[in-house]
Amino acid sequence: MVKLVIDMMGGDNGSNATIGGVKKFLESHDDCEIIAVGDEKELEPIKDIVKIIPSESVLPMECGVMQAMRQRDSSVFKAVSAVNEEKADGVISAGSTGAFLSLATLITKKIEGVERPALISPFPTKVAGKYAVLLDIGASSENSPEDLKQFAVMGQAYCKAVFGNQNPKTYLICNGTEEGKGNELSKKTYALLKEDPNFKGYIEGRHVLDGEADVVVFDGFTGNVFLKTAEGVAKMIGGMMKDAFKHSLCTKIGYLFARRGFKPMLKTMDYKKVGGALLVGVNTVAVKAHGNSDPDSFAASIEVAYKLCKNQVVDKIKENLK
Amino acid sequence: MVKLVIDMMGGDNGSNATIGGVKKFLESHDDCEIIAVGDEKELEPIKDIVKIIPSESVLPMECGVMQAMRQRDSSVFKAVSAVNEEKADGVISAGSTGAFLSLATLITKKIEGVERPALISPFPTKVAGKYAVLLDIGASSENSPEDLKQFAVMGQAYCKAVFGNQNPKTYLICNGTEEGKGNELSKKTYALLKEDPNFKGYIEGRHVLDGEADVVVFDGFTGNVFLKTAEGVAKMIGGMMKDAFKHSLCTKIGYLFARRGFKPMLKTMDYKKVGGALLVGVNTVAVKAHGNSDPDSFAASIEVAYKLCKNQVVDKIKENLK
Repeated sequence: MVKLVIDMMGGDNGSNATIGGVKKFLESHDDCEIIAVGDEKELEPIKDIVKIIPSESVLPMECGVMQAMRQRDSSVFKAVSAVNEEKADGVISAGSTGAFLSLATLITKKIEGVERPALISPFPTKVAGKYAVLLDIGASSENSPEDLKQFAVMGQAYCKAVFGNQNPKTYLICNGTEEGKGNELSKKTYALLKEDPNFKGYIEGRHVLDGEADVVVFDGFTGNVFLKTAEGVAKMIGGMMKDAFKHSLCTKIGYLFARRGFKPMLKTMDYKKVGGALLVGVNTVAVKAHGNSDPDSFAASIEVAYKLCKNQVVDKIKENLK
Repeated sequence: MVKLVIDMMGGDNGSNATIGGVKKFLESHDDCEIIAVGDEKELEPIKDIVKIIPSESVLPMECGVMQAMRQRDSSVFKAVSAVNEEKADGVISAGSTGAFLSLATLITKKIEGVERPALISPFPTKVAGKYAVLLDIGASSENSPEDLKQFAVMGQAYCKAVFGNQNPKTYLICNGTEEGKGNELSKKTYALLKEDPNFKGYIEGRHVLDGEADVVVFDGFTGNVFLKTAEGVAKMIGGMMKDAFKHSLCTKIGYLFARRGFKPMLKTMDYKKVGGALLVGVNTVAVKAHGNSDPDSFAASIEVAYKLCKNQVVDKIKENLK
């Protein structure tokens, strides 16, 4: 039995997204107990299928860490606290990233030996069905070479636990591929990683999603820029494709003929299906769902957390860090 | 009359690309004198339309700075030297970026007061016909807040000279938009830029190409990751689109109907048309053409250099730095 706590109120769509997500998830899982934290009235529709912890206050999306710590009756504070109190396996929130990550770190504590937890997520690549695991995509703003070395270890543990990949090819983001390239941080990290047999060297932004790399290590600042750039360019091109098909009656007819071909592409590009990112390095499975989650993508986030618990990812990270 | 020196041998396609490019460019320009540096035999076809400076040695694409400085008979060394010797207005190379940038910096010298030259290029945005000017996209691997402040000044001068935009909205790349976000470098740079009335704050990777920003400032490492990520994602999606249309007979028919609609998109996404990046901060118009230039894109690079000379971009940068 997996036990998950869910912050039902965070995210742009509040309980509208999370209630549907919980229902959908539970339809296909009978070995998972869910503890839902949020407004009792709003959670009425699911009161028979989950345990409810009432909370009437919600943190705003742009909330700072100090506010997150002080507002102890917020749904996310209560949800993260419930991990310890209820001995749950994991916790999910679609609310403020900063608030959720700092609460998860402060309340469930960092794994012994971990300096900085990191946000990790698998991303679709050119190779159908193959994912690249990227970290840190935004938990930190600044990292040391030692942080990045730990990210590599935690990324590899994630790959082993989730994809059963025993020798994940690990790369470090850089502005070139030859040894000697990079900034101070890259060079020092390269020197630390050199002894790791899974470390294959530097990788440039253009090759991260080629399907060759299993794990790509970023400092949090660069990882965040990478993630948002990839997202921005994909959206921009997606918008242009729509415009292209809407151009004239002729192109609209073209769409009718072509759309079947585009299905695999849309499936690959549907980042929402990935379901959210894991905070690795803390003593629980803390999954950050997309702020703009809808019921389907929130269900996918619960699924991610459920699988990570089943795969005992936290224990495997602890083993790898030894 | 504009006088341009061209390294005819650099780039993946050597003189095969540059000769065609020069011919194409000169067909539509009669107020430009070209000095072509390269193998005399290979340059035979254009000997009547350009002045030739013979050079039989070519630097490899992966050449280091030391080799670039030592191999004084290389086409790129001779080309950059000719800027001073022939009193030329600019120089173009499709060869090794590192070699070309360091030679341009060492031989033509930095503009007084400039700490670090930067690689700058306009990029297509969501808004048709609107470009965002990005720098540094890879001249440096590490920058100080003072470097980034100068990049903002030089980027704005470029916008004024090339697009006639007198108040270019200037942003700094970051992992969030609120003041207080970012790493040490972002925070210190933000403090320095705050007094500039054109500075509009932080921008995230996903909004760089929205069409709102006129100038976006990056440190060279992050700028390079941004550039290559955008390129990689665009290529990945482009490849998926091709596969989608090739999926079946039905989708191929769809392509025939739809292709007209895709023309503006392909035009916007054709980075080759942008023609290459300028090294700002040195005493000449040094344009780095794409390594894999073909005759068309190399002609576009010559066009870029020609226009930048016509617009007296170097003088305008000097004025703005005062």
